[in-house]
Amino acid sequence: MKKYLMTPGPTAVPERVLLSQAAQIIHHRTGAYREILGEVIKDLKYVFQTKNDVFILGSSGTGAMEAAVVNLMQRGEKALVVKGGKFGERFGEICEAYGVEIEAMDVEWGDAVSPYEIQKALARDNDIGVVFVTLCETSTGVVNDVASIGRIVKETKAVLVVDAISALGSVEIKTDEWGLDVVVAGSQKGLMIPPGLAFISVNEKAWAKIKANVKENTCLPSYYLNLTKTRESFLKTDHPFTPPVSLVLALKESLAMIKEEGLERVLARHRLLAEAMRAGIKALGLQIYAKSPSDSVTSVKVPASVDGLALVKKMSEEYGITIAGGQGKLKGKIFRIAHMGYADRFDVIIALSSLEMVLKKMGAKVKLGAAVKAAEEILI
Amino acid sequence: MKKYLMTPGPTAVPERVLLSQAAQIIHHRTGAYREILGEVIKDLKYVFQTKNDVFILGSSGTGAMEAAVVNLMQRGEKALVVKGGKFGERFGEICEAYGVEIEAMDVEWGDAVSPYEIQKALARDNDIGVVFVTLCETSTGVVNDVASIGRIVKETKAVLVVDAISALGSVEIKTDEWGLDVVVAGSQKGLMIPPGLAFISVNEKAWAKIKANVKENTCLPSYYLNLTKTRESFLKTDHPFTPPVSLVLALKESLAMIKEEGLERVLARHRLLAEAMRAGIKALGLQIYAKSPSDSVTSVKVPASVDGLALVKKMSEEYGITIAGGQGKLKGKIFRIAHMGYADRFDVIIALSSLEMVLKKMGAKVKLGAAVKAAEEILI
Repeated sequence: MKKYLMTPGPTAVPERVLLSQAAQIIHHRTGAYREILGEVIKDLKYVFQTKNDVFILGSSGTGAMEAAVVNLMQRGEKALVVKGGKFGERFGEICEAYGVEIEAMDVEWGDAVSPYEIQKALARDNDIGVVFVTLCETSTGVVNDVASIGRIVKETKAVLVVDAISALGSVEIKTDEWGLDVVVAGSQKGLMIPPGLAFISVNEKAWAKIKANVKENTCLPSYYLNLTKTRESFLKTDHPFTPPVSLVLALKESLAMIKEEGLERVLARHRLLAEAMRAGIKALGLQIYAKSPSDSVTSVKVPASVDGLALVKKMSEEYGITIAGGQGKLKGKIFRIAHMGYADRFDVIIALSSLEMVLKKMGAKVKLGAAVKAAEEILI
Repeated sequence: MKKYLMTPGPTAVPERVLLSQAAQIIHHRTGAYREILGEVIKDLKYVFQTKNDVFILGSSGTGAMEAAVVNLMQRGEKALVVKGGKFGERFGEICEAYGVEIEAMDVEWGDAVSPYEIQKALARDNDIGVVFVTLCETSTGVVNDVASIGRIVKETKAVLVVDAISALGSVEIKTDEWGLDVVVAGSQKGLMIPPGLAFISVNEKAWAKIKANVKENTCLPSYYLNLTKTRESFLKTDHPFTPPVSLVLALKESLAMIKEEGLERVLARHRLLAEAMRAGIKALGLQIYAKSPSDSVTSVKVPASVDGLALVKKMSEEYGITIAGGQGKLKGKIFRIAHMGYADRFDVIIALSSLEMVLKKMGAKVKLGAAVKAAEEILI
């Protein structure tokens, strides 16, 4: 049975990227590697839409989230954490692990955060040093209005940290235009490479805060994730620690693909696929879970008559399609289909086709072909 | 020009391991992946020679060193750090980043630490909670007598942490027999896979300390590198965060190669290659830098008449051989040739042959063929 990976990370890796990893390792402290690293950083800035520093970390996306917390927060300061799903909550967990006081902005799962609420919170509490928000909340399929949040936070002394892990390369993120001080991302999502690399962009406002923390010795402790040390190395087109070389080679290849297609067309493709997916879902009489749905992943409420866990299992075992179920309190209640990174029209068709068949087999009232038809009307 | 990677990490990766990375990504929360992870952990325990927990971290080896520090040390406690090179010093730097008081045992670079000195330090100072020592100090080419150190620390309340990054899979390490409480390792050395994974083994004595730290709330802060959280996931054959899947697939393949050859034969091969390399070096009238040389990497004093930096450069540019120069205060004073991981007899011959030619060209008094002859007498 052919296998199709349609989870919101890790995502499918294009063949030419897979093969690029099979090149023999080159030492990272050679001219040959430095040339690759320089090119990769330049291309990452293109995807981040930024002139800011962009660094590569050898970790999962969570490592970059932690890097943002430990470098930006100072002891005794407060963090405003937008919690509207598992990954927003993770920022809170990291802060708590370091003893940082947080003001939690609890958003109903499935809803986007109101930028106005962030504005009010910042006006109310002058101790907030950093705002942590998720662009695409993978666990709920919600996209937040980070452009507006950027405009708001820019007017304050607070620094804005955006988790764009499930967004970069698939959902618009204008780092500089929107005034996003720090943006974190991961490799195994829109960037179409295997997991193992994380990325973080840092602008001048954020550096000013980090430098003040260092100067006043109010930093949280860090070593592997220390951005000051990381910056020193990247200024010399180097890494502070041995980097995952084969993944950097893969990244070079995937960034070449993104440049060939053009970032605008990449993002337009994601919008089209997401629209087709949502039309298909609705044509089956199902409901999109996210009120403000992301173009990288579609979250769908499991119909009352169907066992959500069994649905995900059947998709995989009987049709070879790996999708994701719900996490945490959404377990069994939603399923999530990604159309992120190396995804094209027929991936949407495949996902909807298998969904129709599985739902039918599970006794749901669906008309075979209805979702595919609705999607085709958009994809034509 | 053919290229040969002979640095003490990253090391050359076997073709079948390189190709194993080119398989399509599988999701890490599937039965198919869990089966691979279970097998990989079992095989890692074979190489670590342990029944202890062994975890995989998505980081460089430094991440695992930091994990050892932040999970084992408690606030107000002292660390005994053996500093005899760059990587011993790194343990000290990590401790300092977290505000841990250290007692530094400064060993002359090139020398091994005296286990007796460790015994005396522990007897003298009852506040020492953890001893940090490097098995093979990559920067100097020294191997420390960790077996004896293990016996000594076992008799105390202190926990022993061993950096085996440049050792595991190439130099004997009997984790359980020697009573090594925590052992950290990396992927891009003896394990023959690209950089990006780190490993850490933890025994009952170390767990008792970690649990006491957690209970008494005297832990240093951590999230990505938190071993308690990591253990919870690995008990379910899972990772706490998205793992570098393609590198785990590579690891599966490299561990299969180690099992096929047999660990004893792998280690015997390293001993033989190291012996041949040292014989070749001496036959050229050069001096081995390390007084207690490791079988994974040979460090050599640059002859007085030769420019050490130019030597390394010429090896690379004129013969395609990447070796390593000296680091820190040894810059230009030594060069290091690795015979670690995917290395066999003719890698030693190639290294010595190119060294003979480069030295000759640089005006050193060497007899072409002399080193190769000496090595052949051992390799025959």
